[in-house]
Amino acid sequence: MDLPIPAEHQHVRYNPLKDEWVLVSPHRCLRPWSGQTETAPDDQPPDPLNPLLPGATRSSGQRNPVYTSTYVFPNDFPALLERVPDPPPSDHPLFRSSAAKGTCRVMCFHPDSTMTIPLMTVDEILAVVNEWVNQLKELGRKYTWVQIFENKGAIMGCSNPHPHCQIWASSYLPNEPRVKERCQKEYFIKFKRPMLLDYLKEEMIKKERIVILNAEWVALVPYWAVWPYETMLLPINGKPQRMTDLTDEQKRSLAEIMKQLNIKYDNLFKCSFPYSMGFHGAPTGPSAAPGDSPHWLLHAIYLPPLLRSATVKKFMVGYEMLAQSQRDLTPEQAAQKLRECDDVHYKAKK
Amino acid sequence: MDLPIPAEHQHVRYNPLKDEWVLVSPHRCLRPWSGQTETAPDDQPPDPLNPLLPGATRSSGQRNPVYTSTYVFPNDFPALLERVPDPPPSDHPLFRSSAAKGTCRVMCFHPDSTMTIPLMTVDEILAVVNEWVNQLKELGRKYTWVQIFENKGAIMGCSNPHPHCQIWASSYLPNEPRVKERCQKEYFIKFKRPMLLDYLKEEMIKKERIVILNAEWVALVPYWAVWPYETMLLPINGKPQRMTDLTDEQKRSLAEIMKQLNIKYDNLFKCSFPYSMGFHGAPTGPSAAPGDSPHWLLHAIYLPPLLRSATVKKFMVGYEMLAQSQRDLTPEQAAQKLRECDDVHYKAKK
Ligand SMILES: O=P(O)(O)O[C@H]1O[C@H](CO)[C@@H](O)[C@H](O)[C@H]1O
Ligand SMILES: O=P(O)(O)O[C@H]1O[C@H](CO)[C@@H](O)[C@H](O)[C@H]1O
Repeated sequence: MDLPIPAEHQHVRYNPLKDEWVLVSPHRCLRPWSGQTETAPDDQPPDPLNPLLPGATRSSGQRNPVYTSTYVFPNDFPALLERVPDPPPSDHPLFRSSAAKGTCRVMCFHPDSTMTIPLMTVDEILAVVNEWVNQLKELGRKYTWVQIFENKGAIMGCSNPHPHCQIWASSYLPNEPRVKERCQKEYFIKFKRPMLLDYLKEEMIKKERIVILNAEWVALVPYWAVWPYETMLLPINGKPQRMTDLTDEQKRSLAEIMKQLNIKYDNLFKCSFPYSMGFHGAPTGPSAAPGDSPHWLLHAIYLPPLLRSATVKKFMVGYEMLAQSQRDLTPEQAAQKLRECDDVHYKAKK
Repeated sequence: MDLPIPAEHQHVRYNPLKDEWVLVSPHRCLRPWSGQTETAPDDQPPDPLNPLLPGATRSSGQRNPVYTSTYVFPNDFPALLERVPDPPPSDHPLFRSSAAKGTCRVMCFHPDSTMTIPLMTVDEILAVVNEWVNQLKELGRKYTWVQIFENKGAIMGCSNPHPHCQIWASSYLPNEPRVKERCQKEYFIKFKRPMLLDYLKEEMIKKERIVILNAEWVALVPYWAVWPYETMLLPINGKPQRMTDLTDEQKRSLAEIMKQLNIKYDNLFKCSFPYSMGFHGAPTGPSAAPGDSPHWLLHAIYLPPLLRSATVKKFMVGYEMLAQSQRDLTPEQAAQKLRECDDVHYKAKK
């Protein structure tokens, strides 16, 4: 069978941060789709009984203050509790368990349920960034890992459309950052430079995967991206290892690029673009200190599921779960499509 | 906050096959769910224009024979093509790509679109097993890895409810089996025995995670299961490294346990239970030979997404994507629930 093959031929690419490969099959964009479609993200009506609203009473019986900016509170159904008994010691190399302590918090971005990052002002997003730094400072003193993440959209398991993120802090270093810690350390030992700084330098020359560049940050589709429109935010000046290292300029500029990127995301399929996003920086905990992890460079990752439209996502299923991730358009094609998206939000134009 | 905590307290467990941890938070079962729900799997009506039916013409213009048992044909939109030019050599350690060749096939299990594994007879399932062995034999001569997998249900990205699986063969060893190859090899070097044989021995004594045991196979919820009702099939006699090593007894017994397990799965939430499943055995290719991989034990894995009911799945999103998998019930609780499910299919009882 001879399909017309766009741009590039099928190949695999290596992700040096995770020591993993991804299969890139651009000819697969030609495949028709007759499978499951999703409810378009904008179809969720705001709920007047929403427990995240200022002044609302949550299921725990606790009442939110009448907050006007960000608001952080303990997750009422945390996956990680602070005080739990340790499991009995493991007696076999194939049946190993270990203690896990932690805490889970929820952070509302804004009092208005219909507000999302692309619709918020830069000052409002800056308040979110500042609160992230506060949270990381406080929880990082005690916990080895503080995962800040946002699940956006019902398709990403988000049970409440009110703009919010979560913060899960743990006594253990989870898999994903553990692998990134190892890979970046090995690269640093070998090349005497932080991996992501070398990577950034090359991307700034090549330019083909860059989506947005501002004074302090770049938003790009990583060479090894797995999700169709996956992006990464990297700081272009200095070498911040954690969010707590960011300068005031970097924080404001981060708020700006988050708004810009999210406007493009929403404009791509004319919907409130769903994703999971979060930050990865050097591990924290009692023994961590500024500058102690020269192999790390702080970065944010956006993992959005949509592939073709507001209702057709990429399924990471059989082959992906059992063998290897596979993508249907090249990272360069994704970057180009995002670059071409308007810088003004489609809703602002009406 | 003091939640009533069932059975066990939160902890992390280690998966020695993948060198990864999972967070187990059983108290989280108490969380209410107000997020996205799925269409119940049984609601898909059979399509008279279904391209997988015997005698139907597919989108490629090819016509299926009037098959009466299994039927294998090349995937009309393959992610892996046989003949593609190699990518240019990579010039930088952070921008590595590599050639990938392969082939993708589709295999219908049965001529009837409403038939699924739990509803098929053991003889019909045995025909599927035998064809898997044929496919592995043929494709394994040329390709390093032959991934047999079934995506079942629209929720698993399956675009056609007709009972079928896929076979993707590749010139490269994909991530998942590459990691399993490494972990099993390291264990074998250290302990001089196959990891999964040691694991099996312990599970047969402990019994608490066993769901079904028949003459040749055991179906169990692995100690390190990630998905709520994840299971693994392990051969209990001999040490088959690949599907091509199976004896006639093992093949028939595999068909039997697949039927038994799938009946329990369907009965759990009274629906056609969605999952991705597949087989992992020693790598293949021109230099592979029977008995050359004593560190391997062939096994099947079932990865089903449902958590609470036919319409509420477990979302593997923000924390899971960025940090670590998390589960809401213990593997022991899952095994018990599956054991308690009826051995007669709920549809057969009407
Ligand atoms: O080939 P299918 O069934 O159309 O496609 C399905 O399975 C593939 C292999 O797991 C995935 O890559 C696709 O995202 C999914 O929709
Ligand atoms: O805490 P939430 O938003 O209710 O839950 C959501 O995010 C969690 C963290 O990624 C996941 O474990 C859940 O499966 C998902 O539904």
